[in-house]
Amino acid sequence: MMELTNAQRAQILIEALPNIQEYTGKIIVIKYGGNAMKNEELKRAVMGDLVLLSLIGVRVVLVHGGGPEITDMLARVGKKSEFVDGLRVTDAESIEIVQMVLAGKVNKSLVGLIGEAGGRAIGLCGLDGKMIEAKPMDERLGFVGDITSVNITPITDLLEKGYIPVVSTVGCDDKGNVYNINADTAASAIAGKLKAESLLTMTDIAGLMRDTSDPSTLISKLNVSEVPQLISEGVISGGMIPKVECCVEAIRRGVSKVFVIDGRVPHSILIELLTDEGLGTMFLGG
Amino acid sequence: MMELTNAQRAQILIEALPNIQEYTGKIIVIKYGGNAMKNEELKRAVMGDLVLLSLIGVRVVLVHGGGPEITDMLARVGKKSEFVDGLRVTDAESIEIVQMVLAGKVNKSLVGLIGEAGGRAIGLCGLDGKMIEAKPMDERLGFVGDITSVNITPITDLLEKGYIPVVSTVGCDDKGNVYNINADTAASAIAGKLKAESLLTMTDIAGLMRDTSDPSTLISKLNVSEVPQLISEGVISGGMIPKVECCVEAIRRGVSKVFVIDGRVPHSILIELLTDEGLGTMFLGG
Amino acid sequence: MMELTNAQRAQILIEALPNIQEYTGKIIVIKYGGNAMKNEELKRAVMGDLVLLSLIGVRVVLVHGGGPEITDMLARVGKKSEFVDGLRVTDAESIEIVQMVLAGKVNKSLVGLIGEAGGRAIGLCGLDGKMIEAKPMDERLGFVGDITSVNITPITDLLEKGYIPVVSTVGCDDKGNVYNINADTAASAIAGKLKAESLLTMTDIAGLMRDTSDPSTLISKLNVSEVPQLISEGVISGGMIPKVECCVEAIRRGVSKVFVIDGRVPHSILIELLTDEGLGTMFLGG
Amino acid sequence: MMELTNAQRAQILIEALPNIQEYTGKIIVIKYGGNAMKNEELKRAVMGDLVLLSLIGVRVVLVHGGGPEITDMLARVGKKSEFVDGLRVTDAESIEIVQMVLAGKVNKSLVGLIGEAGGRAIGLCGLDGKMIEAKPMDERLGFVGDITSVNITPITDLLEKGYIPVVSTVGCDDKGNVYNINADTAASAIAGKLKAESLLTMTDIAGLMRDTSDPSTLISKLNVSEVPQLISEGVISGGMIPKVECCVEAIRRGVSKVFVIDGRVPHSILIELLTDEGLGTMFLGG
Amino acid sequence: MMELTNAQRAQILIEALPNIQEYTGKIIVIKYGGNAMKNEELKRAVMGDLVLLSLIGVRVVLVHGGGPEITDMLARVGKKSEFVDGLRVTDAESIEIVQMVLAGKVNKSLVGLIGEAGGRAIGLCGLDGKMIEAKPMDERLGFVGDITSVNITPITDLLEKGYIPVVSTVGCDDKGNVYNINADTAASAIAGKLKAESLLTMTDIAGLMRDTSDPSTLISKLNVSEVPQLISEGVISGGMIPKVECCVEAIRRGVSKVFVIDGRVPHSILIELLTDEGLGTMFLGG
Amino acid sequence: MMELTNAQRAQILIEALPNIQEYTGKIIVIKYGGNAMKNEELKRAVMGDLVLLSLIGVRVVLVHGGGPEITDMLARVGKKSEFVDGLRVTDAESIEIVQMVLAGKVNKSLVGLIGEAGGRAIGLCGLDGKMIEAKPMDERLGFVGDITSVNITPITDLLEKGYIPVVSTVGCDDKGNVYNINADTAASAIAGKLKAESLLTMTDIAGLMRDTSDPSTLISKLNVSEVPQLISEGVISGGMIPKVECCVEAIRRGVSKVFVIDGRVPHSILIELLTDEGLGTMFLGG
Repeated sequence: MMELTNAQRAQILIEALPNIQEYTGKIIVIKYGGNAMKNEELKRAVMGDLVLLSLIGVRVVLVHGGGPEITDMLARVGKKSEFVDGLRVTDAESIEIVQMVLAGKVNKSLVGLIGEAGGRAIGLCGLDGKMIEAKPMDERLGFVGDITSVNITPITDLLEKGYIPVVSTVGCDDKGNVYNINADTAASAIAGKLKAESLLTMTDIAGLMRDTSDPSTLISKLNVSEVPQLISEGVISGGMIPKVECCVEAIRRGVSKVFVIDGRVPHSILIELLTDEGLGTMFLGG
Repeated sequence: MMELTNAQRAQILIEALPNIQEYTGKIIVIKYGGNAMKNEELKRAVMGDLVLLSLIGVRVVLVHGGGPEITDMLARVGKKSEFVDGLRVTDAESIEIVQMVLAGKVNKSLVGLIGEAGGRAIGLCGLDGKMIEAKPMDERLGFVGDITSVNITPITDLLEKGYIPVVSTVGCDDKGNVYNINADTAASAIAGKLKAESLLTMTDIAGLMRDTSDPSTLISKLNVSEVPQLISEGVISGGMIPKVECCVEAIRRGVSKVFVIDGRVPHSILIELLTDEGLGTMFLGG
Repeated sequence: MMELTNAQRAQILIEALPNIQEYTGKIIVIKYGGNAMKNEELKRAVMGDLVLLSLIGVRVVLVHGGGPEITDMLARVGKKSEFVDGLRVTDAESIEIVQMVLAGKVNKSLVGLIGEAGGRAIGLCGLDGKMIEAKPMDERLGFVGDITSVNITPITDLLEKGYIPVVSTVGCDDKGNVYNINADTAASAIAGKLKAESLLTMTDIAGLMRDTSDPSTLISKLNVSEVPQLISEGVISGGMIPKVECCVEAIRRGVSKVFVIDGRVPHSILIELLTDEGLGTMFLGG
Repeated sequence: MMELTNAQRAQILIEALPNIQEYTGKIIVIKYGGNAMKNEELKRAVMGDLVLLSLIGVRVVLVHGGGPEITDMLARVGKKSEFVDGLRVTDAESIEIVQMVLAGKVNKSLVGLIGEAGGRAIGLCGLDGKMIEAKPMDERLGFVGDITSVNITPITDLLEKGYIPVVSTVGCDDKGNVYNINADTAASAIAGKLKAESLLTMTDIAGLMRDTSDPSTLISKLNVSEVPQLISEGVISGGMIPKVECCVEAIRRGVSKVFVIDGRVPHSILIELLTDEGLGTMFLGG
Repeated sequence: MMELTNAQRAQILIEALPNIQEYTGKIIVIKYGGNAMKNEELKRAVMGDLVLLSLIGVRVVLVHGGGPEITDMLARVGKKSEFVDGLRVTDAESIEIVQMVLAGKVNKSLVGLIGEAGGRAIGLCGLDGKMIEAKPMDERLGFVGDITSVNITPITDLLEKGYIPVVSTVGCDDKGNVYNINADTAASAIAGKLKAESLLTMTDIAGLMRDTSDPSTLISKLNVSEVPQLISEGVISGGMIPKVECCVEAIRRGVSKVFVIDGRVPHSILIELLTDEGLGTMFLGG
Repeated sequence: MMELTNAQRAQILIEALPNIQEYTGKIIVIKYGGNAMKNEELKRAVMGDLVLLSLIGVRVVLVHGGGPEITDMLARVGKKSEFVDGLRVTDAESIEIVQMVLAGKVNKSLVGLIGEAGGRAIGLCGLDGKMIEAKPMDERLGFVGDITSVNITPITDLLEKGYIPVVSTVGCDDKGNVYNINADTAASAIAGKLKAESLLTMTDIAGLMRDTSDPSTLISKLNVSEVPQLISEGVISGGMIPKVECCVEAIRRGVSKVFVIDGRVPHSILIELLTDEGLGTMFLGG
């Protein structure tokens, strides 16, 4: 605990008041991934943030991926991965591992951590209540899926009952096939369908920067209409392009504000939502 | 604002989490009076505390007195006060002034301040919904009343609708007479009837101290069964005796914890409820 | 009690049946003022009417002024009033008295009388739940306000919980200033926002009359479109002009029927609503 | 309409206020029969009473018989009645007529009259929702039944939806047999099961009188414990004995007050419930 | 019971699953008449079907006629019928018999049979809750009515409380007159107002057939736009014309599917709704 | 599909009616395991049964194990199992596999199958909403757990929202440790806490038999008080002893009826619940 008087602590709580007022009763979708999901301390900080938000009346939905854990497990069962256009070919044996790792290990462990932090979570995957329906993205990739529809009822039902829904992004089709779905895409689709107040995407960067070597060039606020220009200028490039496109898509589907935040900073969620000055880049609609 | 990083601010919010969990959904009655009601800055700090607590799901009830304002107004209309056993004789003309000042000026001004701080309050007096019924305490005192019954429905109705009920302690009988009721007594009776989690009495002392000149002798926790001994030892004396008796009475009526807190400290309510270490004296049942 | 057989009494109850059916479940706003508020007997008759209406399922809202009581109290504290265009200049000291008298004395005393008559009332002013927001009407007048917005939630919340809301018409702005609001104007704005079935304005006249010396010239029913003509003819004149304008405004905001009734007649409210033949003047929309 | 001023009419409504307050929200069962059911004017007066009571929040249940109509119809189809101990032997052909007359003619006609008077009624018989289960009272009597159980759910379901349930007292067993049930007995059983506030039995007498030729000997109030004595004294005799026994039984089952009222007086129900002085005999528990 | 193993029984339940899913929660109106209402075995089969449907979550409404019972009863009271254009002249004496037979005998007996089969029914006629309002169809016919308005609240109120409403089709006007209403017309109007999923009309034919002597010419499915052609071809003729017009009318009022089914086949309702292949003729909108 | 006429199919549905009536609205817990979980056809039959039951208003909870899948997966990652007293020693690495296989593979695949069969399921494990809390059973066994408390809120919340909760039996403690819990034990504890109407345990035997080689010695009904005798006689022996003890325990905790049914028979659940004659052994309380 910091060396602060109780009076100072109270003062800080009071200063958070207008921000709490802004978010209370609203739905916030958090796309969880990157370092914030690997480092144990960051992980616990995130869970604490979720529980605090939930307690002060914010309706929190957590959407997570789990690439590294999948890679580990495939390795343990001696499965070698082939890649097409940078995407892993996912055969029947692999998708079973993907489902198991995402919905059984990563998802339920997050649920457990939220429980330890004093919150009430239930872990869902796209099979629960037929939440995420999908079809093959590309025949060569096997069970890698594109979302065909999102049914948010299981999420809203759990929010109504006071739970934090934790969502792992495997989908299914009506023949019983399971698909691995990109978590950024799924988070964007879910946030859009929920007409969430905000979508926060946790990344391993400080936000969009005009010059990545110069933190002072951080773009704090961005209209989605400016994105194509920033891509053409190379400010948004590489792996950030699809992430940013998910942000843009979420805005188009009716999310009010989308944030790319720095998951490497402890409590980056609370800092973004409950303090006056945000950390990363906020996308707004035009 | 304090010179703290946002990360430190988030950390402090997180550290308040277990305390928030303890109070969320619970009813807290605050007996407001003394310096915290005179000093403008302290007043605004109290209103901020109430709004924050209300926002994080604590159900707050504010009960206030208003002795100094009554004295002022009686003076302005040229009314001289007579006293019997230290209690002001309250004739028909005076009780009208008392009702006007408490229910019209003090009460509604507090309601207004809560509104400015972003909260939603409604001001009640004992006449609203026949909340406080009373009878004359002593014929010589005129319209000074003893409570005969408390009907908490108006308070619980407002809590259900999300308001902070602000209560001024005038009562009535079924003949239409109005009585001035001691605010400590009324707060204790209301908290008891509500089976409140806590009653916080704001005073102008740091708490009960074995030696008032030595802050290190503060009694942080006290079983109500120890009170008679402390009175006989003179640790509790003078004007604190009736205040402490109201605390004891509240515990007897089913309030879990009763606090005497130092209203001269800004944000003493938040400090007591949301930080690890309290400020004043806590009474517990045996 | 009248010398009637019980059978006759039952017969009269039965004859009121169609009128009761017309109003049950509907919202009725009563602007209370004039003699009906000064004479003790008339006062009790009004309270009885409200309680009866409330009991048979009419949702009653009482809006009151209190000019004479304000004048009295200002006199008692030795405050002299200045006037501009017939409106009292209200300085900071005066508005405090206005708030105290209206919200503390008049309002809560009416609440008490309703309680004595067997009803359940709660007294509100414009500060409660930020119900009436206002701005200065004219700089020369000080704290005399024009309504900028009406938030009827506190009223509908109380109606839902079964209370008779009693409203005193002081308003506030977001800087904490309090304003004296004309009660006719406030009643009209509140009735309009509530989409009330009826607004009844109690006055000290028998209704609009073409010739005030001849009761047979009473105008029983009036389309609001006829008002300008009646003003130009001098049938509506003096203090009745702003009152009638409030009636017209209420109709424009969606109130179905507006009545000017004679507050000097005991039970004029019941007579207007529950007997076949009304007393005063009814305004209807075109 | 009576020659009364509107002010007098309002005054009378006001005088009914305390009585309305006493009954609002309470369940009242009315056993309807005798002259009040034969005379068209009395009939309409009863329906008006029911609708008024219903409108002011009393939850009214009407239970009726229909002896004379049954006798008429049996005669029309050329059916001669045999009697055992004063009770009509009811064979299979007769019970069909009984059901048809009670549930189809009398019941639905009453429902229609309530509708005309502005109320909302639904007609039930003991077959609806298996409300009244019965067994043969005496083999010699055929389909004359004793109640074996009362299921009040259909009645409370209709009360909740705002209807006046009108009940004709035929019962059934689980083999599909239908039975004619005495209406006084059924009303008593239903009122008891509903824990009704009051049961009013409409008769063709002014109430119990010590000397039937002297109206001044009317017994206004009676403790059920006094009944055996009155029977042995002959004050209660003949056909009144079973009626009074039903009253006593209702009190034993938890009805607060049972009244024998004079159905020949128009509006006797309203007079009993809404005016200060009752008409007939009130039974109370000891 | 059929000679089937339990496994085969379970298999058959499972095969009904998709059909159950299609109808669960939907409203089905059944127009009951013809042989299915005369033959005791068929009658019990129908009641069983209703109770099963109700139990698996279908919201069933039964509308019935009763021509033969009316004819019988009129004969028993020695009433001779006159006919105009094939419709019985219904005088005041006759309509009383009609009401009694339909609402008292047929209706309540069906309610009783549903009760015996384990269901919960309440019998309504057009007088209950002023459900069916009517006017004379033709002065020469007396109390034969055309529907002027249908108020479905009594039906939806009973469905909400879990009952099967059983409706006999007598109507009323606001002067207290009662009218005999054609049951096919009433069923069509009620189904339309309820926006029912299906209306099933039970008849004594196998469905519409191009050649009534050749079952293979059964028309299984029909667009209502084809009806005029079929009438002009004589495929629909005689008494089937008004029945088919009611079917067409129901589709026009918003019923999704209307069926003419063969009431002579036991369990024709279940067969139509819960097995893959229907029995009669289905009408669909264009 | 069987060669049956539609009439016969309808007849069979009707014959299931009394059994449907018995279970509608009741909670049924199914302990799923053995062959019924391995054979694809049996699996689909079970899912069909669950969906049918759910559709006709039975509130179904599925509790499953997954021993064979765990063994497979441990083998695939090259993990050798050690055994103590016949129970697998479960180290940290193994429990991770157990959680992954049960909560991620088996559980979610069942959820998917229910979805395909037209039902709505959500998969839970003991971590969700802290549903199953556990402690080590025996230090030598590692993360094999004994239940310390069951919190059924997540199950009842999902039942209320219309889902079939599918439960995999891993538990947790408040330090974040995960435990493998015996599925029979968990099903018994959950059924007891839910006060379920029935618990059905699917096994690979036809039921309890006095002579396992003679099907005619099947014990159809058993009072739990007879169990000790049957154990001592060797009728219940080996692996059936703990299974039967779970059945006895469920009865003690308030489940009305517990069944051991033959999971090798397709649709054994429906046969047990919806046909007249059960298949296996029913345990009842004394």
